[in-house]
Amino acid sequence: MPHVAVPPALPGIQGLLVGYPGSGAVLSTLAQTLLRGDSPLSVPDRELIAAWVSSRNQCAFCTGSHAAAARHTGPEIAARVDAVLANGPEAAGDPRLTALLHVAAEVAAAVAPVSDTAIQAARDAGADDRMIHDTVLIAAAFCMYNRYVDGLATVAPPAPEAYDGMGAMLAQQGYVRG
Amino acid sequence: MPHVAVPPALPGIQGLLVGYPGSGAVLSTLAQTLLRGDSPLSVPDRELIAAWVSSRNQCAFCTGSHAAAARHTGPEIAARVDAVLANGPEAAGDPRLTALLHVAAEVAAAVAPVSDTAIQAARDAGADDRMIHDTVLIAAAFCMYNRYVDGLATVAPPAPEAYDGMGAMLAQQGYVRG
Repeated sequence: MPHVAVPPALPGIQGLLVGYPGSGAVLSTLAQTLLRGDSPLSVPDRELIAAWVSSRNQCAFCTGSHAAAARHTGPEIAARVDAVLANGPEAAGDPRLTALLHVAAEVAAAVAPVSDTAIQAARDAGADDRMIHDTVLIAAAFCMYNRYVDGLATVAPPAPEAYDGMGAMLAQQGYVRG
Repeated sequence: MPHVAVPPALPGIQGLLVGYPGSGAVLSTLAQTLLRGDSPLSVPDRELIAAWVSSRNQCAFCTGSHAAAARHTGPEIAARVDAVLANGPEAAGDPRLTALLHVAAEVAAAVAPVSDTAIQAARDAGADDRMIHDTVLIAAAFCMYNRYVDGLATVAPPAPEAYDGMGAMLAQQGYVRG
């Protein structure tokens, strides 16, 4: 049972965004900016970074929903998401994305400078300042969303299928409702 | 040296907010909403929660700037901030704030439900749903800001006095410039 009252039919962060609309609006705008706004990283790559960080943090709701959102951007992406979540960054099949997923994992693991080794590997694979910046900020933001969702003990549907509809909606409409 | 190019005269998050203005605007609005917007928690209590989480995460820039912001809200607050940062939540001199600082420390430590014990202690000390919600979200948000600032290896001025001017400005003007 969640630690605070939320609308009962809305799992995970959904109940928090609706039940606490003042912060909810800004948190939705931040997700939209980071995952759909201007960036040299593709939407599927950004959704995969979000799902990967959430997976490292063992946040079931955020992993399920962002993995589903990434999967709904295309069949070849769906295979990549499944491979990375099962087998780690090397399974991404794209050296630059692999290197950025390692950067993201370091951000999730500790409040500390990302290692020079991980930054250099990302640069060697073609990442520029903006890609490194966006990766670190997305990873940091999911360390917030994950803690918000799990810290307040919100409900995460156990079945992977429960996230499929959410993922389709996020892939099609994004994070800010018109 | 920071991992990405930032305006050289701006330490900590300041260079990131200016150098990456798309995300910077939303991150500033989020700080304004959480630390200055509608909440049953006072501004000094919220700044202290931000400084305390940053201190737990050993983020020197965020600890220094938010402790300074809290201190600039009044002399009795300054003594409380110094006592909590030196000696922990029991030194807050306010049982409800002490309990909420323990909740915040749990959020900083792990992506996991805050313990029933910590939540019950906060309720026993008079905290309602909204206070618990706001505490968890502020703590989670600083787990993001701390990782953004330190992950990208931004510069944190070593001298405590360097934060005094920042704190005065944040106390007087908040996080969104007019």
